[in-house]
Amino acid sequence: MLLDDERLDYLLAEELRIIQSPSVFSFSLDAVLLARFAYVPLKRGKIVDLCTGNGAIPLFLSARTESQIIGVELQERLVHMANRSVAYNGLEEQISILQGDVKTIPETLGFEKYDVVTCNPPYFPADNMSDKNISEHMAIARHELHLTLDEAVRSASQLLKQGGKAAFVHRSGRLIDLITAMRANRLEPKRVRLVYPKAGKEANTLLIEGIKDGKPDLKILPPLIVYGDDGEYTEEVREMLYGDK
Amino acid sequence: MLLDDERLDYLLAEELRIIQSPSVFSFSLDAVLLARFAYVPLKRGKIVDLCTGNGAIPLFLSARTESQIIGVELQERLVHMANRSVAYNGLEEQISILQGDVKTIPETLGFEKYDVVTCNPPYFPADNMSDKNISEHMAIARHELHLTLDEAVRSASQLLKQGGKAAFVHRSGRLIDLITAMRANRLEPKRVRLVYPKAGKEANTLLIEGIKDGKPDLKILPPLIVYGDDGEYTEEVREMLYGDK
Repeated sequence: MLLDDERLDYLLAEELRIIQSPSVFSFSLDAVLLARFAYVPLKRGKIVDLCTGNGAIPLFLSARTESQIIGVELQERLVHMANRSVAYNGLEEQISILQGDVKTIPETLGFEKYDVVTCNPPYFPADNMSDKNISEHMAIARHELHLTLDEAVRSASQLLKQGGKAAFVHRSGRLIDLITAMRANRLEPKRVRLVYPKAGKEANTLLIEGIKDGKPDLKILPPLIVYGDDGEYTEEVREMLYGDK
Repeated sequence: MLLDDERLDYLLAEELRIIQSPSVFSFSLDAVLLARFAYVPLKRGKIVDLCTGNGAIPLFLSARTESQIIGVELQERLVHMANRSVAYNGLEEQISILQGDVKTIPETLGFEKYDVVTCNPPYFPADNMSDKNISEHMAIARHELHLTLDEAVRSASQLLKQGGKAAFVHRSGRLIDLITAMRANRLEPKRVRLVYPKAGKEANTLLIEGIKDGKPDLKILPPLIVYGDDGEYTEEVREMLYGDK
């Protein structure tokens, strides 16, 4: 079941396992934060996770909802990993992983049919590939080589019903680009949470949720601090990662 | 020197006094936060404070800079208060208070001549005057009756030289409107600081600074928490208000 340098990791708080590989793809804390931040219906409704990678967000979300979840990923290698993780956890009934290009996926999945879209898109501009040594898989997942932020936001909006919710995680420096893209695509930002690596430091990560055709009314949630002064995860992040125990 | 119910209050940390009136106008914590947040040149450069009210921001800024400061205020009654405060503190050489409409003030003050513009604009929409009992002075200062946010941002931009900085304070729910207006007026947001009334609460106030024709590169500063769990100002706010002593 495991290929090359893949590992079968625990999905932290959830009683789930996920296949990861240090050279191909591992999920990040940001995926965990987004899966906790996003609104999800408890039972009904259909969810799409764009740029799903190895399927971490659908797997996390499956612990919070009985809704159907579709993960969309461009890279076959990651689709393969995600599908094996879904199967390992016996979640084939709830989660489908689709190989496809996020830019055109509404043509396949249908327009305005979904209740929630989550997306942890590539963070870095295509022209800023400082880390030349990473694998092509990593490069595609991290850099806007095949998908720009605007394109991701547009597809998310196209998938959503009126009143549906789209949640994104991104670097906080892209706040303005993200807000601009959301408003240009009928996604009214409603909840923002800023993530700070430590107290007293600048934010580095941003969680944002918008409602399709929602009315303007933005809430900025309490700051989320990742590490304490002791260099360990704060209690809030520990709870997200490992549960209340 | 004092009219009606006016008082001569200490301007907190600074060795300055300011004329206030509970029925006409008193400066808020937000003015203090903006005066501390805004970049100001130490000596050279020209600063304009739009919607200056009773002149709190120019007075605060005079403690941080030797630059010339012009305060612009629509209401004659407030201009009068501000002018008497400036005179009381002997700051007539550094601070001028001008009666004028912010919307058209660049025609009087000149286009693209200033280095810094600060603005604590009316916060509330004109159509949402829930507090009918406030005085007309208060209503004009608080509600977008004579000046919308877009108009304030446009005037700020018109006053600024290329590379000049505009700093605003507003309710955090207007973040998106503010960013949109800034970008539409060549003010690229560069620094944001969110103000939370208490730890664990949603933000209620926003400080934002943009550079005219700056390149996109947004920093989100550490959160500013106003009150501690004990209901008293936090150390950081106390220092802003009362100085280090």
